[in-house]
Amino acid sequence: MMHLRVSFNVLYILSMCLGFLCVMFVCLWSGTWRGGFAWDGSFLQFNWHPVLMVTSLVVLYGNAVLLYRVPLPWSKWWRKVAHAGLLLVAVVLCLLGVSAAFDFHSANNIPHLYSLHSWTGIVTVALFTLQWSVGLGAFLLPWTPLAFKSFLKPIHVWMGMAIFILGLISSLSGINEKLLLTLVGGNGSNTEPYNALPAEALFANSLGILVAMFGLVVLKILFSKEWNNTEFEQESDRPLLADAR
Amino acid sequence: MMHLRVSFNVLYILSMCLGFLCVMFVCLWSGTWRGGFAWDGSFLQFNWHPVLMVTSLVVLYGNAVLLYRVPLPWSKWWRKVAHAGLLLVAVVLCLLGVSAAFDFHSANNIPHLYSLHSWTGIVTVALFTLQWSVGLGAFLLPWTPLAFKSFLKPIHVWMGMAIFILGLISSLSGINEKLLLTLVGGNGSNTEPYNALPAEALFANSLGILVAMFGLVVLKILFSKEWNNTEFEQESDRPLLADAR
Repeated sequence: MMHLRVSFNVLYILSMCLGFLCVMFVCLWSGTWRGGFAWDGSFLQFNWHPVLMVTSLVVLYGNAVLLYRVPLPWSKWWRKVAHAGLLLVAVVLCLLGVSAAFDFHSANNIPHLYSLHSWTGIVTVALFTLQWSVGLGAFLLPWTPLAFKSFLKPIHVWMGMAIFILGLISSLSGINEKLLLTLVGGNGSNTEPYNALPAEALFANSLGILVAMFGLVVLKILFSKEWNNTEFEQESDRPLLADAR
Repeated sequence: MMHLRVSFNVLYILSMCLGFLCVMFVCLWSGTWRGGFAWDGSFLQFNWHPVLMVTSLVVLYGNAVLLYRVPLPWSKWWRKVAHAGLLLVAVVLCLLGVSAAFDFHSANNIPHLYSLHSWTGIVTVALFTLQWSVGLGAFLLPWTPLAFKSFLKPIHVWMGMAIFILGLISSLSGINEKLLLTLVGGNGSNTEPYNALPAEALFANSLGILVAMFGLVVLKILFSKEWNNTEFEQESDRPLLADAR
């Protein structure tokens, strides 16, 4: 068991470091290379989009799913509340992140939702919002029948993983899209083209690689049977509020 | 058990249909909207790239990993051989697909490996080739010690999933990239811009959604414990060629 715990701790600390680097890189990309932040319909409002999406759909989301694996003496009740609370923050931030992109498009007469990135992104956000709402109703409110909770549990777990993978796909295709649309080079551009790999391209590509690495480490922890805390496998007949008493 | 088998069959048939649609859509996209195929350094050579990558890294790869879940009376030996054989075809096709892109770049003075898509793509192909070679040596050749096989098994399974997810990320970011670079509109272009969502954009975006759906259905089957055939969980002391006797 000592061997397993050490390995878990190594991977968990690695996931924390990668998550921190993802947030730092995406903030520096928007804040430094792309000129900073505003909420005025300009490019500076769009800059919130990658920051909010990577922070919410990747880093907060990944940490929220790992809460059921952390070997600390927390009750199931506290894990559920922390899981739902962290994901509520993530839902709010990702809806703000979508608004930043939509407002920027509207103010600049750019059509919404044309690219494959935007299609997977909007599906991810819609599924995430639905999943959070259904999860709240089914697993946190006290009147849900046990049979329904047991029926929903594997669907909730599966949907949770699907949304995370869709979030990774959307994040990487979005970073790639932003660089293709922004680093155009030539007359009228103050940057070198993407295909000349200027420093910004190297930095933002590295952000994409960090996001992918974070995602794969989270999924590794999630699907390693030895760290799957079996006490959380079965839904309790006692509603959450009763568990807390 | 009847209920589980029916659900498995439904999902497995769904995965087959989605895989078929992915190959059909990517062939029609390259073959019809992008003008067909050649091996002459032109755009027509590049057209092999999406076809070969989606077919190999997504559809053949997905089917190869599902071979261990299909409830047919195949021996472990035949499953291993079919798994390795299907993946060998996939390795060859994906290396050809990479060559198609590199040859096109070289012939047209386009730099290699600048985009995030190309970074994740080349990592995916390198890991896949390594995984196949190590897998052949460890699990198919008769002289590998059991202790090494048992040590490698969870790593092989985990790497297999990571490569598949990286393949999905690379495919979707690649389709998005191709559409952004090709559907530019304006003077000198014979297409409407991507953001006007011409028929080709709708079609290729749908291909991306089909690829994501195929990937998620494959992962659903893979991670459902009830379909995890436990007879394949343990590595046998008998080498494969002995198993075959």
